[in-house]
Amino acid sequence: MGAEIKNISIIGSGNVAHNLGRMVYEAGVGINSIYSRDISNAAKLAEQLDAQSVDNLGAVSSASEMLLFAVKDDVLAEVGSSLSGSSQILAHTSGSMEMNVFGGAPRSAVFYPLQTFSKNKQYEGVSFPICIEAADAEDMARLKALGSALVGAENVYEIDSSQRKTLHVAAVFACNFTNYFFTIAEDILKERNLSFDLLKPLISETIEKIDERGPSLNQTGPAVRGDHKIISNHLDYLDTNKDYRHLYNLVTEQIIKNS
Amino acid sequence: MGAEIKNISIIGSGNVAHNLGRMVYEAGVGINSIYSRDISNAAKLAEQLDAQSVDNLGAVSSASEMLLFAVKDDVLAEVGSSLSGSSQILAHTSGSMEMNVFGGAPRSAVFYPLQTFSKNKQYEGVSFPICIEAADAEDMARLKALGSALVGAENVYEIDSSQRKTLHVAAVFACNFTNYFFTIAEDILKERNLSFDLLKPLISETIEKIDERGPSLNQTGPAVRGDHKIISNHLDYLDTNKDYRHLYNLVTEQIIKNS
Repeated sequence: MGAEIKNISIIGSGNVAHNLGRMVYEAGVGINSIYSRDISNAAKLAEQLDAQSVDNLGAVSSASEMLLFAVKDDVLAEVGSSLSGSSQILAHTSGSMEMNVFGGAPRSAVFYPLQTFSKNKQYEGVSFPICIEAADAEDMARLKALGSALVGAENVYEIDSSQRKTLHVAAVFACNFTNYFFTIAEDILKERNLSFDLLKPLISETIEKIDERGPSLNQTGPAVRGDHKIISNHLDYLDTNKDYRHLYNLVTEQIIKNS
Repeated sequence: MGAEIKNISIIGSGNVAHNLGRMVYEAGVGINSIYSRDISNAAKLAEQLDAQSVDNLGAVSSASEMLLFAVKDDVLAEVGSSLSGSSQILAHTSGSMEMNVFGGAPRSAVFYPLQTFSKNKQYEGVSFPICIEAADAEDMARLKALGSALVGAENVYEIDSSQRKTLHVAAVFACNFTNYFFTIAEDILKERNLSFDLLKPLISETIEKIDERGPSLNQTGPAVRGDHKIISNHLDYLDTNKDYRHLYNLVTEQIIKNS
């Protein structure tokens, strides 16, 4: 069993840094430094986590066993490759970057929280998956222990970079695209002075049903019923918005084809 | 104030008939007859609601103040037009049919529950909108009173046939299409032996956020960030499934265009 991670530094001060930082801190792990290019952002988070704020990567505490990168992908790519000589664990939190973004550093790792965070929201009692990858077997054990302390062992998954890409593509469909469809619904309703609130119970129930038995058995609506009369009415209705009409047509065709 | 509706008959024995029937019955309104073309289906529901089961529309109790139609749209269209001479309230529960499907009957009405029902599920303490329309003003008051007894006055809406069509189109985007996108996500994950459960906390949080401040402010992901590198990686990944790739491309383009 690898040693536990007793202290880390966090590179970044955005939503992920705030939320993971707070969870790590509350799990009793020491936070040495918070790095941000904007020192006032670093300072705000550092104060909450009893850490030191720095705006220079060279000033990040070398005593930290792990540097946790919670920065934008392009910043990670920029900084990552310069760290190949590091002897610390270098873990990033990105859904889309390879583990080897750190230029082949022997202790490269990934600590990817599969959740969407807001800075000022506390996630009391809500858990989510943390997807772990590590170049070194003992580091893997260390990261698992840390993840378990944060979200429970049942929510810690070993996921390699290739599977992480799969997860990320799936998450775009399941969350980003669905959210856009909610936006379309809101827009359609707004034109007739109808509130989006009207749809909320229906949305909740749709989600509850997929939680119970997965989405594939729960498809409802005119497309899966093959109700061409309603489909054609809806397409007529959408005639003033070619984008929505095109999308309606395409999704409907695919549902019909796959049902 | 119009008189309260004291008894009804229900035409149909599917999910909507089951759920609305139970709610009406529990609100203390008498149920006279349950009609189904299949008498054994009618009998099952009739037994729960202390009603008589019939498989002949002519045998439906003429003492009922209202006939509540919870049948498929094409059956409604078929039967509806033959009822123009009725002196009872004729209310249908369809999201997509005009109120005047009853051939101009003077007491035509709509009692549309904006929810998705399952036969064997009880909806304890969960409310949803009921959208009301009535040709006669006193009937409107009666239907409002009935709806209020079922889901609370704050969930009863006067919605005309044209607005109901808007609602229906919006609901297809917000529920049917989103469910299809969850199915795509599940399919993409399954190819790599990853469980759809991994995405559930992310989906829950996405829904919670739209509940808090609506969907348009909550768009996340590579499209809204204009992250063309990730988008292009994802499109490469989807190269083996042209349907998913095409959909990914189209939705992404629209998000970029509208953000």
